[in-house]
Amino acid sequence: MSSLEDTIKSMKYDKDGLLTAVVVDATTRQVLMVAFMNQKALLDTINTGKTHFYSRSRRKQWTKGEESGHTQDVKAIYVDCDMDAVVVEVEQHGGACHEGYRSCFFRRLGEDGQWQVVAMKIFEPGDVYKPKG
Amino acid sequence: MSSLEDTIKSMKYDKDGLLTAVVVDATTRQVLMVAFMNQKALLDTINTGKTHFYSRSRRKQWTKGEESGHTQDVKAIYVDCDMDAVVVEVEQHGGACHEGYRSCFFRRLGEDGQWQVVAMKIFEPGDVYKPKG
Repeated sequence: MSSLEDTIKSMKYDKDGLLTAVVVDATTRQVLMVAFMNQKALLDTINTGKTHFYSRSRRKQWTKGEESGHTQDVKAIYVDCDMDAVVVEVEQHGGACHEGYRSCFFRRLGEDGQWQVVAMKIFEPGDVYKPKG
Repeated sequence: MSSLEDTIKSMKYDKDGLLTAVVVDATTRQVLMVAFMNQKALLDTINTGKTHFYSRSRRKQWTKGEESGHTQDVKAIYVDCDMDAVVVEVEQHGGACHEGYRSCFFRRLGEDGQWQVVAMKIFEPGDVYKPKG
């Protein structure tokens, strides 16, 4: 078994076999999105240089940009002290958010206790994601 | 019910009642740690201005710095498109990591497939955390 496979197996996955992945813009350090990876998604991310995740709701692996073309090129991967989360620094092509924003975190909590949109859309989701039949 | 309580109740918690919280340095944007919040931890974070989390392993709420004094002052909170994760921008006092580092993400994946420490310790854990009896 390779050193990389050892490294991936020794991570601490939760009871569903997942760890948290925080995707960050390698240049601006903005948090772009948070998702989950299982062992295979992490290995595929490292081996291909493109981010792969595991969707809890759809119960399948997916690659960022597989539909939108808004892929993420991996620049570096960091692990935390508990070995149950990774930070993935990427070069983001287009937007990380399927709602049309650069980052999924486009709303900030306001003084009034409500979420307020604090970013501008960079694309129209309808132009990028085709309706499914 | 207040607007803030409505906001907190309308978040999408997982089957364990938790959402992911990514804590980021408000100045440098470095990711400091990843943890989980339930409704009460999120409300306490907002109301006190100090980060509160829920520990899955210890099954209890905790406040960052309760033992070490290395507290986090909340500067802003962002939510993602799916309403199941927050980014909390903080002013970090001391280090976020109980292993003595500023950030829990002090290891980067190297070319050899192994984690390599890429940060310097800023405190000695033994000086800050007392052994439990």
